[in-house]
Amino acid sequence: MSLTLDSTPRADGFYMPAEFAPHVGTWMLWPQRPDNWRLGAKPAQKAFVAVARAIAQFEPVTMGVNHNQYANARQMLPPEIRVVEISNNDSWMRDCGPTFVINGHGMVRGIDWKFNAWGGLYNGLYFPWDLDDMVPQKVLEIERLDRYQAPLVLEGGSIHVDGEGTCLTTAECLLSPGRNPDLTQEQIENYLKDYLNVEKVIWIPRGVYNDETTGHVDNLACFLRPGEIALTWTDDTADPQYERSAEAYDFLMSQTDARGRRFKVHKIHQPNPVYITAEEAEGVDAVEGTLPRQAGDRLAASYINFYFCNGGAIVPTFDDPHDAQALATLQELLPERKVVGVPAREILLGGGNIHCITQQQPRG
Amino acid sequence: MSLTLDSTPRADGFYMPAEFAPHVGTWMLWPQRPDNWRLGAKPAQKAFVAVARAIAQFEPVTMGVNHNQYANARQMLPPEIRVVEISNNDSWMRDCGPTFVINGHGMVRGIDWKFNAWGGLYNGLYFPWDLDDMVPQKVLEIERLDRYQAPLVLEGGSIHVDGEGTCLTTAECLLSPGRNPDLTQEQIENYLKDYLNVEKVIWIPRGVYNDETTGHVDNLACFLRPGEIALTWTDDTADPQYERSAEAYDFLMSQTDARGRRFKVHKIHQPNPVYITAEEAEGVDAVEGTLPRQAGDRLAASYINFYFCNGGAIVPTFDDPHDAQALATLQELLPERKVVGVPAREILLGGGNIHCITQQQPRG
Repeated sequence: MSLTLDSTPRADGFYMPAEFAPHVGTWMLWPQRPDNWRLGAKPAQKAFVAVARAIAQFEPVTMGVNHNQYANARQMLPPEIRVVEISNNDSWMRDCGPTFVINGHGMVRGIDWKFNAWGGLYNGLYFPWDLDDMVPQKVLEIERLDRYQAPLVLEGGSIHVDGEGTCLTTAECLLSPGRNPDLTQEQIENYLKDYLNVEKVIWIPRGVYNDETTGHVDNLACFLRPGEIALTWTDDTADPQYERSAEAYDFLMSQTDARGRRFKVHKIHQPNPVYITAEEAEGVDAVEGTLPRQAGDRLAASYINFYFCNGGAIVPTFDDPHDAQALATLQELLPERKVVGVPAREILLGGGNIHCITQQQPRG
Repeated sequence: MSLTLDSTPRADGFYMPAEFAPHVGTWMLWPQRPDNWRLGAKPAQKAFVAVARAIAQFEPVTMGVNHNQYANARQMLPPEIRVVEISNNDSWMRDCGPTFVINGHGMVRGIDWKFNAWGGLYNGLYFPWDLDDMVPQKVLEIERLDRYQAPLVLEGGSIHVDGEGTCLTTAECLLSPGRNPDLTQEQIENYLKDYLNVEKVIWIPRGVYNDETTGHVDNLACFLRPGEIALTWTDDTADPQYERSAEAYDFLMSQTDARGRRFKVHKIHQPNPVYITAEEAEGVDAVEGTLPRQAGDRLAASYINFYFCNGGAIVPTFDDPHDAQALATLQELLPERKVVGVPAREILLGGGNIHCITQQQPRG
């Protein structure tokens, strides 16, 4: 039974645990829309399979699919990955999926945020997004978990928590006019406190340059553990990302978390700038209302868009000279985990990366 | 994880338990196709809701829906009924769904029979049936149960077992040319023995008169417990059902079960003949390839098409003078259960009844 609750996680003693806390499994959605994924999404599907396989080494994975891709997904995925029908407009489980909360006494529930495709009719990336918006309820029904309905537009990729009372986000995203134009920053912060059950929200000014999510924090910075943050970085002061990363660094160094700790911030150098090729752009259907993919567009490539799973960290690679250093640094920073690189250019071409296509279901 | 197994239940020590053995829950599918269910399936949906509610008093119910009916089904069903996406061509979970088997040591698996809409291109009831045929795999994936793929066309409504080695079926159905024309009766019987893990198959000659399933046993006769059978009956010797019921009665009285017991057969008098009204027929879309619903057609009404659930039996009623007697007799025969009548004319109009739209998942 999956009930819809009128209260908030905070009122009920539930909170969002950190991604690096134990999971029962990972949820993903299957890519297919040809106006976002080139060549009928076949290369993206291969990349998603590689991510799912990498995670499945560490924990169970469930792939949600539209019914007309069920047979294909079932065929392409190994048998240990569960495939279930969950209709969707696109495959960003981080952003349209539920945020799970726990109460520390074995219970798990889900938050169903409002979803409007990263900006609705103002600057959203496609229309409609009705199926995406129903994904949390469907996931929670399958798992027989109760559901909180949060009264604000929010994607999972725009928040990170340390599990000890601190939430990281960006003002660029959460205050963008496409999300909650009628809410003040204080009102949004209060909702984050009530639903994630955190004490303090850290508002980094901006996310990654040219990130079509309007600056999701999950492409810029993440907690490695309470008090420690990894931040995407570039040493190239001429790169437009430089001032964004430097700004975030300075800001984070000026802040303390909910427990009063100063942050230790680790810089992870980004790959060289990634641009869409003409061949790649030609593989995408042009559809009115969907963000076009144009040759020469700069993609928001970042190693920070990785995913924690039980005993592992699945990190995007870009066939780039910086790959090895990023993997080595993250492995050094996460000695208790196995860091696994997965080629992710095909995911990046769709507008996100490994963190954006995954959603952890924590252990209760 | 849900694996596809190459072996058989018999080889692995699994068997199909009787329907009256304990369940973990019930699976159903949501009606919607306007070429089978009148008035856009709205009256049928109400009837299915009533059945689901009745069962949910006794055990958990999961309703599979096509995605375009998810919101409507979720709205019409009470919150304790789980709604999941399972694409389907129609709503007969008994017939297209998995048959569950157990091993007596806590494990449950499913049999995925071939499904061809009760006769395929020979005399099937609609085309296509591709989504129905994938229902078992999808149910089993949701439940993370392993799957046997049986190499014959069979619907769950064409078999009953007593859980002690005996299977009831009808020759009219299992030997009909629309199912397995290339298999002999002996080959079919051997498959039943291998997949249901039974010792003896009782081949009743024919099912109910004008039953569009080609004589499914579940509309004619069922086990009440090992050695005891309920049989649909009429005292009207002029009714075409009379010779079928009398034939079945005489046949059953001549047989013994797998343990050598003679059967005790209880006659349950059928309702008065039920015919489709002109108003009802007009409410159904006429579609080439789908069995038409025509005014004056005799419907295969039978109280035997009821469903056992934990502590209950959900019995169809027809606003008929025989309803009270059928409910009273079944309650007397099943003193350990609560017999619940649910008005079922709207289900019958679609070609089946309560047993046809339910599928038990046994306790492991």
